[in-house]
Amino acid sequence: MRQIPMIIDCHGHYTTAPRQHEGWRNEQIEAHKAGKPPPPRPRMTDDEIRETIVGGQLKVQRERGTDLTIFSPRAAGMGHHLGDASTSEAWASACNEVIHRVCTLFPKNFIGVAMLPQSARVSPKNCLPEIDRCVNEYGFVGINLNPDPSGGHRQDPSLSDRYWYPIYEKMVEHDIPAMVHVSAACNPAYHTTGSHYLNGDTVGFNQLMTSSVFKDFPTIKFIIPHGGGAVPYHWGRFRGLAQDAKLGLLTDLVLKNIFFDTCVYHLPGQQLLAKVIPIDNILFASEMIGAVRGIDPETGHHYDDTKRYIDQLPLSAEDKAKIFDGNARRVYGRLSRIIEKQSATAEVSVASLWHREEEP
Amino acid sequence: MRQIPMIIDCHGHYTTAPRQHEGWRNEQIEAHKAGKPPPPRPRMTDDEIRETIVGGQLKVQRERGTDLTIFSPRAAGMGHHLGDASTSEAWASACNEVIHRVCTLFPKNFIGVAMLPQSARVSPKNCLPEIDRCVNEYGFVGINLNPDPSGGHRQDPSLSDRYWYPIYEKMVEHDIPAMVHVSAACNPAYHTTGSHYLNGDTVGFNQLMTSSVFKDFPTIKFIIPHGGGAVPYHWGRFRGLAQDAKLGLLTDLVLKNIFFDTCVYHLPGQQLLAKVIPIDNILFASEMIGAVRGIDPETGHHYDDTKRYIDQLPLSAEDKAKIFDGNARRVYGRLSRIIEKQSATAEVSVASLWHREEEP
Repeated sequence: MRQIPMIIDCHGHYTTAPRQHEGWRNEQIEAHKAGKPPPPRPRMTDDEIRETIVGGQLKVQRERGTDLTIFSPRAAGMGHHLGDASTSEAWASACNEVIHRVCTLFPKNFIGVAMLPQSARVSPKNCLPEIDRCVNEYGFVGINLNPDPSGGHRQDPSLSDRYWYPIYEKMVEHDIPAMVHVSAACNPAYHTTGSHYLNGDTVGFNQLMTSSVFKDFPTIKFIIPHGGGAVPYHWGRFRGLAQDAKLGLLTDLVLKNIFFDTCVYHLPGQQLLAKVIPIDNILFASEMIGAVRGIDPETGHHYDDTKRYIDQLPLSAEDKAKIFDGNARRVYGRLSRIIEKQSATAEVSVASLWHREEEP
Repeated sequence: MRQIPMIIDCHGHYTTAPRQHEGWRNEQIEAHKAGKPPPPRPRMTDDEIRETIVGGQLKVQRERGTDLTIFSPRAAGMGHHLGDASTSEAWASACNEVIHRVCTLFPKNFIGVAMLPQSARVSPKNCLPEIDRCVNEYGFVGINLNPDPSGGHRQDPSLSDRYWYPIYEKMVEHDIPAMVHVSAACNPAYHTTGSHYLNGDTVGFNQLMTSSVFKDFPTIKFIIPHGGGAVPYHWGRFRGLAQDAKLGLLTDLVLKNIFFDTCVYHLPGQQLLAKVIPIDNILFASEMIGAVRGIDPETGHHYDDTKRYIDQLPLSAEDKAKIFDGNARRVYGRLSRIIEKQSATAEVSVASLWHREEEP
């Protein structure tokens, strides 16, 4: 690890993309419903992309003192329940391309993670070419894996099922982790950010915990986002369930392969996370400009300014460096190399950026 | 409140019922599938019921120093996704009758809560006669309301929907709360006690939080079990979501009507719960002989011996008395009266019990 740790936010989505990007998605789905080909993809200039970042995620990085966001397409926008495999493939390709453009324009501040072209009840084998492309051509360092492409109807097999093994093989081949992240709920029982995300996290953990995935892929790594859903709060329950099921100690069972991010939007939750989960398994993240955008009246700061909570935890500098930097580099096996590579190309972009910011 | 508080466990299920009880359920469902009438209900003697309680829930009450369990049929056994409305009605009736027999045999130790004869996509109006019967004839003090009778497919409307209002009207009429508690998952994505229960809690909270239910029924009360699923751990997230949705302060929005039990199976989780949720909204519960039955190697005590965690919390005696006693009496509006009534009939039963325990 470097002597001065970076502050690496491992969970950011491009929620501020130029309007025509999501506009095209709507047109694509409408065309699909009408049995027509999609319209041509919209033009987005570098300046348009720069503007959304400089006034969005980059601005927040600077305000909060974070250095780098591991950045992926908007999670709720993945919409794997819409259209079919071909619409998902075109949409994932478009979304990942936009992420790549952000990472090219701001190479010191953003490194990409791929959205997958999943579709409910379509074998995830169709995702393999897009993973190869994003890793080999774009330098992405991970994927977001949606365990429920049906959007809350749970029509696909459990993550324990060999159905998903082609993805797992590809993850190991490229040394990339998956963040287990659902998309928008189309089942009206669920609120996308209020219950569906958290449930997706809890279910993903539980499915993996009770699986043979870590026996079959000893080096595979998963990040359970949103602080692990309900899992750390119920760590005793899960320890007990593993024990009752004769799966052994939960720590032995999952902690070589499962990691939790810090997208928990109040200090007591962060305190619990750091108390219950070993420091080596916690990765800093905020999902900023995401699910919760307001300012907490109890603190006067944004709910999702999670760095402030971690700064307050009674941890050593070494432990904080693991949460902010070291653990991310270990879990995202390609990350350090890509940081070096993108930094080497960064000076020109940054100069260009500052120049533009000074314009009226 | 009494000067010496009782220790009231508001969340217990009859998981140890005589074998022929669940055996009949299997026969009933098999008969239904075959288009035949169900067999006659099995005979269970008082001695058989006594034996399951004396060696089960009563034994644990004594070992742990709790006084009274608010007791309902086995939650995973409700199985509202099986059969149809008529099988659910017969099964709920049988289950509630057995609970009533336990409460009659051990009137100081058990007070009943009703299982409802719900069925997926069947209007819950069919539950009203069973609620009346359980309250008026059996002296039950609450109901378990399954927000997803489809067992993980979520085929019924949200708890915010007027679909459920007949139940809510009946709750207010009788001054009884509902514990929002799903049953077994039949959707293979979910593990009943590892994810489906916790998700049901989180979803139930979120549905109620974003509803008009508390405007329409200002005195209605719900208990979110299993420590509130993911909610207290993500209290900042929910505060922020309510704020972003312009619903006002979460505390104002839900805390007159929503209460959390303490079925959280490790000390750090209990510490979080007591730190984040006002003491007035926390009800002692263990769900003992339930989801997690083992002994925690880190403490040497049962995971579900939740009284031990609360005993360790840095709370005043007054606050602990609220958690153990006062809050339950407030939330279960009929509870104090039923405690008095059942206590008056208790001496004979207890004498009988002790006599029987001395037998070989």
